[in-house]
Amino acid sequence: MKEVSKLLDYRPEIKVVDATLRDGGLVNNFYFSDEFVKNLYNANLRAGVDYMEFGYKADREMFDESKFGPCKFCDDEYIRSVVGENNTDLKIAVMADVGRCNYKNDIHNRDESPVDLIRVATYLHTIPTAVDMIEDAKKKGYETSCNIMAISNAQESSITAALDILGKSPVDVIYIVDSFGALYPEQIARMADLFCEFADKYGKRVGIHAHNNQQLAFANTIEAVGDGVDWLDATYSSMGRGAGNCAMELLLGFLKNPKYNVYPAIQFIEKHMTKLRESGVVWGYDLQYMMTGLLNHHPNPAIQFTNAKRNDYAEFYKEIIVQD
Amino acid sequence: MKEVSKLLDYRPEIKVVDATLRDGGLVNNFYFSDEFVKNLYNANLRAGVDYMEFGYKADREMFDESKFGPCKFCDDEYIRSVVGENNTDLKIAVMADVGRCNYKNDIHNRDESPVDLIRVATYLHTIPTAVDMIEDAKKKGYETSCNIMAISNAQESSITAALDILGKSPVDVIYIVDSFGALYPEQIARMADLFCEFADKYGKRVGIHAHNNQQLAFANTIEAVGDGVDWLDATYSSMGRGAGNCAMELLLGFLKNPKYNVYPAIQFIEKHMTKLRESGVVWGYDLQYMMTGLLNHHPNPAIQFTNAKRNDYAEFYKEIIVQD
Repeated sequence: MKEVSKLLDYRPEIKVVDATLRDGGLVNNFYFSDEFVKNLYNANLRAGVDYMEFGYKADREMFDESKFGPCKFCDDEYIRSVVGENNTDLKIAVMADVGRCNYKNDIHNRDESPVDLIRVATYLHTIPTAVDMIEDAKKKGYETSCNIMAISNAQESSITAALDILGKSPVDVIYIVDSFGALYPEQIARMADLFCEFADKYGKRVGIHAHNNQQLAFANTIEAVGDGVDWLDATYSSMGRGAGNCAMELLLGFLKNPKYNVYPAIQFIEKHMTKLRESGVVWGYDLQYMMTGLLNHHPNPAIQFTNAKRNDYAEFYKEIIVQD
Repeated sequence: MKEVSKLLDYRPEIKVVDATLRDGGLVNNFYFSDEFVKNLYNANLRAGVDYMEFGYKADREMFDESKFGPCKFCDDEYIRSVVGENNTDLKIAVMADVGRCNYKNDIHNRDESPVDLIRVATYLHTIPTAVDMIEDAKKKGYETSCNIMAISNAQESSITAALDILGKSPVDVIYIVDSFGALYPEQIARMADLFCEFADKYGKRVGIHAHNNQQLAFANTIEAVGDGVDWLDATYSSMGRGAGNCAMELLLGFLKNPKYNVYPAIQFIEKHMTKLRESGVVWGYDLQYMMTGLLNHHPNPAIQFTNAKRNDYAEFYKEIIVQD
């Protein structure tokens, strides 16, 4: 049983990462207004959030610029138009997906960029490319993290092998990513134990990125905090693909470090997130996401179900269990 | 760390209690259609649910019958009109609130009633009356449980004293009730430990009734399962007062006893719960409930905020923190 003191106290090493523009952008093709992005930046500053992820460094050869908002590509100029020289304690992050980012060309040296942290997202079978991207970003002067996606259907032996490779790489933070929203807190505890073992050995930090398919994104995140995980992803109003993520407002309410403040998060949600929902942008817990989470499936069929405005949940359940 | 085998296996002692009509009735004054109630009974039968709570045994001297649906009063005749002789494995429960139930008159002998279980709900300071109600119900032949409400702002010494009194009473099951949705899983673990200590000593079972103010109702319920709590309250689509309860669909998906089946729950939600929401009945996680949960307050101000259709969340936060 964890100590009471841990709930009343805090670890100064904990970092909160706002992933609203990046994971949230997946549900509105990154069409955020300038006002939204500027207000989000200010909310993060006032709330004491440590990192703000602006979006993806997506390859323009693969993605048509006319079909996405600027956070899909995260040009330095765009970010600078929001944050200026960013002389603040809030650091800027972008995500680079293995296989979807022309990192050698599109990621410039850190001294020319407002970005501080490159977050490399990879599946287990693309770890060597992820390491190449991490080394490239490190050489350019960035902090780096690596998100190992979809671990809930991976064997522990593969995860262990990946952690050993990443341990030897120059990456700073290794993330547990429950892409399918399939893991229960007991499994998160076990995963955190494994990740922390390698992190301790190689001098890295561990992070968590949770999904809310089974209404466990916040629960899994605070389970991980109790297990020694320091980097915590969250999004305002849980905005994110499918069932969404750990809610920033819940996380800021939970954390006891005096630098965090939930009130600016409440103000931002009142002003912007409610409007976004009313404009027709859809995310969050619903039965179809519960089902894919429960079955440890990728949420894509559930997202298609949502986009088609279907509500024949029982039929959908039958469709996906025959694919099991 | 809990054992993996516990996640893959099950304890046959676990009982699932459907509280949809009772806790859900608090948001629509118990106006459920006969079709809804009959379909819910059938869904519970098919899903393998162990107990179905029909509502309250409310005192007609205190509550005006014309302002509530029949589940507020749970007359034996009403329940019988739904379940007949109920020759099934699904048992029937009703809740009797201390101070709001004329139990000596309104609860008849079990052999004249379709009800199996009387659930006595009490605050810590009314335990002696709760014990009198338990003894009355036992004498009449019922199974009994006792819900100790609002424990999140009680001192452990008071809870311990109450557990000792209840331990010596004829009650069968003692419930942990997180009325304010304020407890984190680590606190549930500690509470479960305390309740189970007394339950073991006196030969009782322990139950949990969680609220979803911080999106932790399901997480807290499965934490409790891992800690030896056997009786689990849930409601379809989390329907319940304020932020609602542990979702039945999540709980049935999680439990591994082959007698449980999530599919009838999905069918029931598709057919009935969506319609109920569309008809204007409001419940579930929202910022105002997160705030009262976080501050360990009664949800009443948040319910008033909801009923007034307010959306000035930041103003509400300021109102409730000055009451702290």
